[in-house]
Amino acid sequence: MARRVFLVAAGSTRYGESPVGVREMVREAVGACFGSADKGLDGRLVREAFVGSLGFGGGQIGNLAAALNDLAALRLVSARRVENACASGGFALRDAVMAVKAGASDMALAVGVERMNDQPATRRRYWLGVSGDTEWERMAGLTFPGVYALMAARHMHDFGTTPEDLAAVAVKNHAFGALNPKAQFRRPVTAEAALASPMVASPFTVYDCCSTTDGAAAVVVASEEAARAVTDSPVEVRASAGSSDHLAAHERASLTRLDATVRAGRDAFAQAGAAPADIDVAELHDCFTIAEILALEDLGFADKGAGGSFTREGQSALGGQVAVNTSGGLKAKGHPLGATGVGQAYELFRQLRQEAEAGRQAAGAELALAHNVGGSGATCVVHIFAR
Amino acid sequence: MARRVFLVAAGSTRYGESPVGVREMVREAVGACFGSADKGLDGRLVREAFVGSLGFGGGQIGNLAAALNDLAALRLVSARRVENACASGGFALRDAVMAVKAGASDMALAVGVERMNDQPATRRRYWLGVSGDTEWERMAGLTFPGVYALMAARHMHDFGTTPEDLAAVAVKNHAFGALNPKAQFRRPVTAEAALASPMVASPFTVYDCCSTTDGAAAVVVASEEAARAVTDSPVEVRASAGSSDHLAAHERASLTRLDATVRAGRDAFAQAGAAPADIDVAELHDCFTIAEILALEDLGFADKGAGGSFTREGQSALGGQVAVNTSGGLKAKGHPLGATGVGQAYELFRQLRQEAEAGRQAAGAELALAHNVGGSGATCVVHIFAR
Repeated sequence: MARRVFLVAAGSTRYGESPVGVREMVREAVGACFGSADKGLDGRLVREAFVGSLGFGGGQIGNLAAALNDLAALRLVSARRVENACASGGFALRDAVMAVKAGASDMALAVGVERMNDQPATRRRYWLGVSGDTEWERMAGLTFPGVYALMAARHMHDFGTTPEDLAAVAVKNHAFGALNPKAQFRRPVTAEAALASPMVASPFTVYDCCSTTDGAAAVVVASEEAARAVTDSPVEVRASAGSSDHLAAHERASLTRLDATVRAGRDAFAQAGAAPADIDVAELHDCFTIAEILALEDLGFADKGAGGSFTREGQSALGGQVAVNTSGGLKAKGHPLGATGVGQAYELFRQLRQEAEAGRQAAGAELALAHNVGGSGATCVVHIFAR
Repeated sequence: MARRVFLVAAGSTRYGESPVGVREMVREAVGACFGSADKGLDGRLVREAFVGSLGFGGGQIGNLAAALNDLAALRLVSARRVENACASGGFALRDAVMAVKAGASDMALAVGVERMNDQPATRRRYWLGVSGDTEWERMAGLTFPGVYALMAARHMHDFGTTPEDLAAVAVKNHAFGALNPKAQFRRPVTAEAALASPMVASPFTVYDCCSTTDGAAAVVVASEEAARAVTDSPVEVRASAGSSDHLAAHERASLTRLDATVRAGRDAFAQAGAAPADIDVAELHDCFTIAEILALEDLGFADKGAGGSFTREGQSALGGQVAVNTSGGLKAKGHPLGATGVGQAYELFRQLRQEAEAGRQAAGAELALAHNVGGSGATCVVHIFAR
């Protein structure tokens, strides 16, 4: 009934400290995106734009949506910013998909952008802090590493997960990041080095935590007919599902399960008519190593409690059951908040078109899943893509 | 082809300094909204929510979308914040309409909220300032009253518009506001008093400028089938159109015309198969008196340059060509940034159902238009509703 929707173009800056301002970052990502269309893309056909950003890209420049106007091809387009904590990018994509399905435009642009490295630490902490619960967490001094560390400690207590399990996530993702020219961190790490790195919030060392950084990414979604005019290798958006949960971790049903992920995943698999075992490659929201393990379990890739062993056995590596975070993930590719969800789609677009670099390309990948979380599990959006 | 979409419920707080926090304001507006459904509304059928807010309701509480979870009926709903400067509310509504058209949910909630009175003046100026251009306007000291004053001065120069024309807008809107229990300002004003009030930015006196304040509003949009279960008096959303333009006023084609309004209006009339002369009642974005005059002209209610005389002749009053800002408008009802666009829909929902108070009800109104602007014309969204 509703129209089929496709990804037809995708672009990204490299993640990491950017020498240019937020507008230039957006321009670079959108330019690369439009330029990626193998049959050419007339930007004037894009009539809806969604900009995912948490702190509107830096703080001194607001009205990001209208700023797209400066990219001449998008003049007078219907544009807005979508904010959903660290899931801002994923929801920008989700709403762009809806715009095409609703018939508002044959093509819609989803952009994600964040610029954090020129922000003072107090401001970065503030932007991150207000994405979580205020009364019970932020005002009490609980930061994101702290709240995820509580989840990790409970997971260890309930299921016997070990620091070595967590380190296995970091080792895998940094190995992938080392091969990704868009990644912030381009060096592999050993389990020994990860475990021996400075403690941040027990049981997390530095290598259990992702970075906050600069980055921008863009994708164009299109109707079936519009897609055909742009590329011979479109990627279908088979599912888009969102969910939310209580902001404060203590109000949720469990510390070792994100119900927003469970629900969004279930809805997405139902829409796609697929099961976890069908997914070849996935970008999961690994803001902390435990978050990848929770996502593996909550999405049904691994049994509850078995995410750690799943990782250590190589089931989430190339050649395993599902290749997870071939981009390096938030851990090694970096986590420019609002850019992350769109960047995941950029990575999976390239994976499904077999365009990723050797050593991190999932051979013959046909079905892909993107999982983007906001807050410490307050919001989740899941997309399933197919070539 | 695409599904027809209806407003089925609407609620609002009173605008003006609020004694409660932002979450309570949202709870009040959503509660009133759900309670307004004459056949009852099961909140669990609302599977998509869009929260329009510029400064996320105050600054210390973030993640507003996920906070909707605290309203038990919305647990695990797909929710996000939509930010588009002062058009945040209108775009939240627009994206809720798209969600229903796309088939993502049979019902979607649009909420608008802002809490400004507990913010220090520097912060209010910052939030407003970053909605306009940074390099050429804000950093140079140009505030919103300043930039709209430039437009007014140019309009006076080009078309002979007078301070009395501007005052006529204020007199009309304050008269309406005096009759609206949801309005911040409940007293009429005379043209003499308006003209004699303190100068803010020439040619603007205090009465040419709207207030910034607290407020929240909510509406539920539904598919045709879902609408029938909720109410016997649905209001159809006949058109939803958005546009944007350069952030900086000097980069736009004209100082006396907002092309974002022109384009959004043209698109909306085309979608609705209607002309300006068909509209019975309209909420226009009168952040300053000149803004209502520009909107009258840019939407085609009056010829270019004739918006002032149109107003003085009573064509925008009850019994005139179109009843404009029967709520009091931003001028007298107040302007809680992100709430405004949703509050316009609340007003028109009641107007089209003949539920407004005596003296400000447009008798027999059948077709209504809402016009919401962000920045100094950088963004615009127009909706057309029909009973």
